[in-house]
Amino acid sequence: MLGRTYDDQLCSIARTLEIVGERWTLLIVRDALLGLRRFEEFQDSLGIARNVLTDRLSKLVADGLLERVCYQQRPARYEYRPTGKAADLVTTVLALMHWGDRHAAGPDGPPRIATHAGCGGDVREQLVCAECGQALGPEAVQMLPGPALTDSPA
Amino acid sequence: MLGRTYDDQLCSIARTLEIVGERWTLLIVRDALLGLRRFEEFQDSLGIARNVLTDRLSKLVADGLLERVCYQQRPARYEYRPTGKAADLVTTVLALMHWGDRHAAGPDGPPRIATHAGCGGDVREQLVCAECGQALGPEAVQMLPGPALTDSPA
Repeated sequence: MLGRTYDDQLCSIARTLEIVGERWTLLIVRDALLGLRRFEEFQDSLGIARNVLTDRLSKLVADGLLERVCYQQRPARYEYRPTGKAADLVTTVLALMHWGDRHAAGPDGPPRIATHAGCGGDVREQLVCAECGQALGPEAVQMLPGPALTDSPA
Repeated sequence: MLGRTYDDQLCSIARTLEIVGERWTLLIVRDALLGLRRFEEFQDSLGIARNVLTDRLSKLVADGLLERVCYQQRPARYEYRPTGKAADLVTTVLALMHWGDRHAAGPDGPPRIATHAGCGGDVREQLVCAECGQALGPEAVQMLPGPALTDSPA
């Protein structure tokens, strides 16, 4: 064990990164959420080697984030559709994007802007309390051990 | 160019992953945000090879997410403190954690729970519109080209 996997980490961040932390994987998810469907579309967008893209797409299908669907017979052609599990990454993807906009964008500003389809306003990720409904800053967040840590016999 | 870097991607997600997408880096940020400071603390938490940890810590210092601070003279000892740029990843880290809680947690449930320090309620990431204040589902988010894409001469 040379620290190549996160298996020893009892942590939902580590488990998420086991699924989407491989190089290119989150950018494929981004593209799928933006509406790309076909192998060639992903390849044009990402410019990566075909074998790497094939590998990443297969893993995303195996992990249930993409569905491989036959959209044409003779010759058979397939496309990749994001599942609900992939759509559930939207907040994560937007949080990564907005952090990059704030801390790593070039002089031209942000490449893409997430807007509210209803009124055109900018979309933000806000931490809120599910109990009292208050909007929270990072200083108001306290991490407590959950059941998987407190019930652990170790 | 074998697709080993995201340099060709005009995308703030890709730029963020260039900084925090390396294996272990986000878990180091997690630990720093949880209060870990010293090399040995990070090593105990992550169980990775010392040279890998040294490399990741140096990169996080170079990228401005950690500050290396001398906390003791003779012998000189250093600790790593998260900067505002690291603290600004809290929403991203929590979004990754909660996705893992929902889709990849073991039978024992979530290892850690983010709570509101004020009332003890669960913390959630909510997409909101900065203009009209409405809470948004993923279907209400529309991606538009930003200045870096629309002004591009290419």
